[in-house]
Amino acid sequence: MPPGSLTSVGIGDDAAVVTAPSGSVVAAVDMVIEGRHFRRDWSTAYDVGVKAAARSLADIAAMGAVNTALLVALAAPGSLPARWATDLADGLAAEATRAGAGIVGGDTARADSITISVTALGDLEGRAPVLRSGTHPGDVIAVSAPLGRSAAGLALLTAAVPVPDSAPLSALVTAHVRPAPRYEAGPEAARLGATAMIDTSDGLLSDLAHIAAASAVRLNIETPALPAAPALREAAANLLPADLAADPGSSGPRNEDRAAELVREWMLTGGEDHTLVATFPPGTPLPPGWQVIGEVLLGTGVTVDGTPHPGPAGWQHFR
Amino acid sequence: MPPGSLTSVGIGDDAAVVTAPSGSVVAAVDMVIEGRHFRRDWSTAYDVGVKAAARSLADIAAMGAVNTALLVALAAPGSLPARWATDLADGLAAEATRAGAGIVGGDTARADSITISVTALGDLEGRAPVLRSGTHPGDVIAVSAPLGRSAAGLALLTAAVPVPDSAPLSALVTAHVRPAPRYEAGPEAARLGATAMIDTSDGLLSDLAHIAAASAVRLNIETPALPAAPALREAAANLLPADLAADPGSSGPRNEDRAAELVREWMLTGGEDHTLVATFPPGTPLPPGWQVIGEVLLGTGVTVDGTPHPGPAGWQHFR
Repeated sequence: MPPGSLTSVGIGDDAAVVTAPSGSVVAAVDMVIEGRHFRRDWSTAYDVGVKAAARSLADIAAMGAVNTALLVALAAPGSLPARWATDLADGLAAEATRAGAGIVGGDTARADSITISVTALGDLEGRAPVLRSGTHPGDVIAVSAPLGRSAAGLALLTAAVPVPDSAPLSALVTAHVRPAPRYEAGPEAARLGATAMIDTSDGLLSDLAHIAAASAVRLNIETPALPAAPALREAAANLLPADLAADPGSSGPRNEDRAAELVREWMLTGGEDHTLVATFPPGTPLPPGWQVIGEVLLGTGVTVDGTPHPGPAGWQHFR
Repeated sequence: MPPGSLTSVGIGDDAAVVTAPSGSVVAAVDMVIEGRHFRRDWSTAYDVGVKAAARSLADIAAMGAVNTALLVALAAPGSLPARWATDLADGLAAEATRAGAGIVGGDTARADSITISVTALGDLEGRAPVLRSGTHPGDVIAVSAPLGRSAAGLALLTAAVPVPDSAPLSALVTAHVRPAPRYEAGPEAARLGATAMIDTSDGLLSDLAHIAAASAVRLNIETPALPAAPALREAAANLLPADLAADPGSSGPRNEDRAAELVREWMLTGGEDHTLVATFPPGTPLPPGWQVIGEVLLGTGVTVDGTPHPGPAGWQHFR
């Protein structure tokens, strides 16, 4: 595995030594577990490695830090093919490299099921961390990338209906099994003066609720402003016919309404996109890739077009 | 859980921020898994927390660094009692505190069995890390504490024979389920000029073999110099009668020889003591607690009283 450029002692001793140029280190740990975060019939081992790395790497980016190093603990059954483990390592290393980090430590042990625990380390380059608690009424809310991709991909995977073999739909499935967060948007937001930030691991509304609580404000989302990932409408249209089969009287227009609603739900509550959502002082010029989706107000909680969102705000993992 | 004095952002945001005063961070990850590293009928949840923390904390000490922070990932069945998880957290926090560290991050998820992954972070206080590769012929080998405790405790737990309820024997069992490494010996050894260091997680011979290989030297152990933990002889004497029951002709003296041999094996190959073993330039004055056990020679591998050790050098976990 590639050591990061900031590693002075890598794998092979009792511990790694990673330089921390700005005198502090940012650290986060996250797990992926077979049957809960991935299925071996849907994801390759390489995919699982990418997803396991991305979850932790995105947490570092959400602090406004650059990633420097990963440490990986793998618990797996003795029956796991050696090839699966090396492919997993390749996926972890590839995603670490994409984020500018190296894999510097690891541990493996036998267990009944596959659990991958990834600790990511990062550096703030001298900046203050962007916390969840720093936003104020008047700030704008913006996202670093389109929303709903992973949720749509999961819906396609779980659908009982045959889905056309189209490139845009395949891209959604890929986004679910192998997320590709835009990590550099984290330090970019910090440099732009972001006042709060989080990544959408549990779903936009659910994650925004953490910022609302930590900052003691209300966050209002304007749904017309939400940037849908490409092909969400196509995915929804392909999923709905089976859904409506029990109601043969349904008409075309009604189907279109329901497709729009499904897309909206994916964007508001779908998890695992690892899109960054940040708040900025009003008037902050945002570079390409960022999209304003709402504003920070006096009050508490999260509202959608001015009203509370009905139904669960959060992401339900597939078990 | 207590945040360490070096933590500027702890649990509750996307990631923690830990100060790294000397411009680098030492990091190691280790796992403990139910059925492999602990059994719930032998260990309380608090014990498991202590052991899980100790494994990673000892790796940081073995680099000559002081511990600053832990991140913990817990995968467990939904049926796990809430009390078990809080007791586990108490054990983790207590051992972290004993090592001078705080628990700064965590993740929990459902899984079929209990897996606890602990990442430890440390600081070198401006010193170079003590690697496995730095020793030379002429150096002495020393250990930071008595040996064989954990192996004897495990033998008592697994014994089919009834073991007397004696305080010294109970202390051995406690040492197995709840190790208490002398973490401060790591930075102490570094300040004394240690040339190589490791902790005895897999067993003295097995861990010394890593130093021998990394430093391209031979390490010779003198068994009369090995510091036995208290009560090892008593433990061996209590375990042997059952062992010899199939050989009623055995006499007293022969039993004593076998007890001495069992003690010797526990010290040479027993794992999980997390005693530090380090090499020092000849003539280095070693403070109390350290015991010279051998010397570094030209050659390769590890020898015991000048000859290779028969049998397995390493620690067999109990599955």
